Amino acid sequence: MKSNQANNESRLSETTRLEAFSDGVFSIAITLLVLELIQFLHPQNGESLLKFFLHHWEPFLAFIIGFITILICWINHHHVFDYIDKVDGKFMWVNGFLLLMITLTPFPTAILAEFLKTEGKIALAIFGFNYFMIGIAAYSICAYAYNKYLIKEDSRDFFYCIKLTYWYGIIYTLLVFLICFISIPVAIFLYMFLFIVFAFPKEFATMLLRRKQKKTKEKVSE
Amino acid sequence: MKSNQANNESRLSETTRLEAFSDGVFSIAITLLVLELIQFLHPQNGESLLKFFLHHWEPFLAFIIGFITILICWINHHHVFDYIDKVDGKFMWVNGFLLLMITLTPFPTAILAEFLKTEGKIALAIFGFNYFMIGIAAYSICAYAYNKYLIKEDSRDFFYCIKLTYWYGIIYTLLVFLICFISIPVAIFLYMFLFIVFAFPKEFATMLLRRKQKKTKEKVSE
Amino acid sequence: MKSNQANNESRLSETTRLEAFSDGVFSIAITLLVLELIQFLHPQNGESLLKFFLHHWEPFLAFIIGFITILICWINHHHVFDYIDKVDGKFMWVNGFLLLMITLTPFPTAILAEFLKTEGKIALAIFGFNYFMIGIAAYSICAYAYNKYLIKEDSRDFFYCIKLTYWYGIIYTLLVFLICFISIPVAIFLYMFLFIVFAFPKEFATMLLRRKQKKTKEKVSE
Amino acid sequence: MKSNQANNESRLSETTRLEAFSDGVFSIAITLLVLELIQFLHPQNGESLLKFFLHHWEPFLAFIIGFITILICWINHHHVFDYIDKVDGKFMWVNGFLLLMITLTPFPTAILAEFLKTEGKIALAIFGFNYFMIGIAAYSICAYAYNKYLIKEDSRDFFYCIKLTYWYGIIYTLLVFLICFISIPVAIFLYMFLFIVFAFPKEFATMLLRRKQKKTKEKVSE
Repeated sequence: MKSNQANNESRLSETTRLEAFSDGVFSIAITLLVLELIQFLHPQNGESLLKFFLHHWEPFLAFIIGFITILICWINHHHVFDYIDKVDGKFMWVNGFLLLMITLTPFPTAILAEFLKTEGKIALAIFGFNYFMIGIAAYSICAYAYNKYLIKEDSRDFFYCIKLTYWYGIIYTLLVFLICFISIPVAIFLYMFLFIVFAFPKEFATMLLRRKQKKTKEKVSE
Repeated sequence: MKSNQANNESRLSETTRLEAFSDGVFSIAITLLVLELIQFLHPQNGESLLKFFLHHWEPFLAFIIGFITILICWINHHHVFDYIDKVDGKFMWVNGFLLLMITLTPFPTAILAEFLKTEGKIALAIFGFNYFMIGIAAYSICAYAYNKYLIKEDSRDFFYCIKLTYWYGIIYTLLVFLICFISIPVAIFLYMFLFIVFAFPKEFATMLLRRKQKKTKEKVSE
Repeated sequence: MKSNQANNESRLSETTRLEAFSDGVFSIAITLLVLELIQFLHPQNGESLLKFFLHHWEPFLAFIIGFITILICWINHHHVFDYIDKVDGKFMWVNGFLLLMITLTPFPTAILAEFLKTEGKIALAIFGFNYFMIGIAAYSICAYAYNKYLIKEDSRDFFYCIKLTYWYGIIYTLLVFLICFISIPVAIFLYMFLFIVFAFPKEFATMLLRRKQKKTKEKVSE
Repeated sequence: MKSNQANNESRLSETTRLEAFSDGVFSIAITLLVLELIQFLHPQNGESLLKFFLHHWEPFLAFIIGFITILICWINHHHVFDYIDKVDGKFMWVNGFLLLMITLTPFPTAILAEFLKTEGKIALAIFGFNYFMIGIAAYSICAYAYNKYLIKEDSRDFFYCIKLTYWYGIIYTLLVFLICFISIPVAIFLYMFLFIVFAFPKEFATMLLRRKQKKTKEKVSE
């Protein structure tokens, strides 16, 4: 299979290995989150188990938020790569920037777990800044793949809409980052909305595509 | 291979990547268990090695229980995905719920290791609750795949029986969870029985299928 | 590719996923070894870097021994699976026993790093016992695959010799385990010999096969 | 697919599994770097978050340097294996030497994070020595594959140039290692240049190939 592959198919194989490496990073980052939970368990030898859970609910909240964050990133990465046909040298670095933000994610999650009670606004803002950077990374991947024609020819229109979703994502996360300094509950509510929308990237992009096609039709019929 | 794939085959590739990501999570969670063992090693600098092993057998027991738990989950996940043909956006989240429980597993294992001696009933109940949640997640995966026709057409009958095994699993783990608060030895015995049954998911589902077919025949012959 | 596969090919796909899961466990266990090294770095804030390296060479020795151990196991696992054609439910558990020993390996490595100076004989014996158990696991995998005809038909003779190498391995590691209690240098020398032989499993098994064929010929010519 | 493979194709499958195992090691090593960051977070419970970031910028710098280092190694490993056709027993060990250096990388990164302020020259030299060893490992992989004809026949000329880049890499990293003891800023500047060149291994090797072809033409025309 590999031996008689032409120059073009060899590049496909590169895409597969880039996906495999990225999958590895995603799955490790998501699993490392539990270490922060276990770390919390150790110092309280005197405390009883039930009291421990009552006093330390923040690490659990942070664990679940961190888990959902990385899972959403993986689902979106997976969705974007479904349309990517080939890769080049620079694309490795654009993807590498996203992976950098993913491997970092357990760190703001740990900050959230330890400082939510005492310095909630700053802790949430740091976590929110991470979202903003992930948004930039996701948009960069799409923009690069779109401009350099790394995607399947027949899905350019749809991929443009995928790219657009991450553009909206950048603006949205920047706004919510600023709101973190004003009100924690409002920021959390807005992040939950972000989660729901990007949990289903295909549906979101399809919605944008339909709206675009509708507008085009209206223009034509005018 | 990927370039000339039709819409339908593209989905198959998605299944493969979902499996790869899940495999990554399983293999990391199962390997992280050893960190808890090593953690135990550090504080006792004064103690001799043999005494250390005599006084601290709980982490080893917890390690082996945690290992078998995640291995059984992987074997069952593997078995279920053998019949799954395609995936959709929501299915990622149903599978994500199972992965959440898997990545969490090292945490109740660490609780078991540290609190088995002092607060055995509650420690075991927390570990047992984890089983109950895994049971719900496994059933959800099967039920979703069955209802949305994500499975191979010719294995619907068998897959129904697989789904049934996890339904029994939910009820069973709920009962044993309650027994944890009454008697530790009985609960451990019942969990061992659970291990043996779900260690061989194919054999268990086949047994259910045969019983079902036998009943159908009896009805026809009546 | 997956959709039109017959019953027989579906099993092959199972082998691939078992390999992927095992590869994940091997690669994580081998990378976790570095955490023990970093752990050693933390407490000595007052000490200068060069002095630190002079006083703490044992963790480095243990790291390299642990690394080579897991790498040899992976190379042998890889080699054995080259001849395995299909898997069944029980085989997952035989392989799972090997993975249990692999995930455990960072633990005896940590013991070696911390107790080599103070309780060398016992620390080495614990590490050596790990080898003995890995030997049993490797032999079990081969024996099960051989007896249940899970291997390629045309390589039964060669696979028998592979099985034989692990049988020798069990006896050898048992003997060296006992020697650990008598003399550390002799035991280390014998383990190094073990490393060299199992570093090249194909060459070792080929040697045994040739000797066997030679004997058969001699018998025929008699 | 696997069942009817000839002896030659079986070896290709070995290459794939070696790549998968290596990818696992790379992706885990790169993700473990964050643990060092989180470790830094724990002791400062009294300090406020913003002050913490102001006082502890070295772990972040070390994290990013470590991340880029391993990413560059992966990109180069990936690039080299694009031309490798088959593997043999000894090649596993040559590749294993590279993996040893990769799994070690989080350790010098941790040293950099903790000792950059107090013992900058020695900390940087240790990190630089790691580069030198990685250079030797990368060159060994290429030299072995080239000499044993493990590469695709039609890319021998290009692969020779790839091999040459790592030869230059060994000499360069040795020189910068020595400069570490003289001037930290100069060494950092030279390492940044190294990063930029090896970030795009294909372009670097292509440049060398063109220069070589130009020279050959000049000789012919003489």
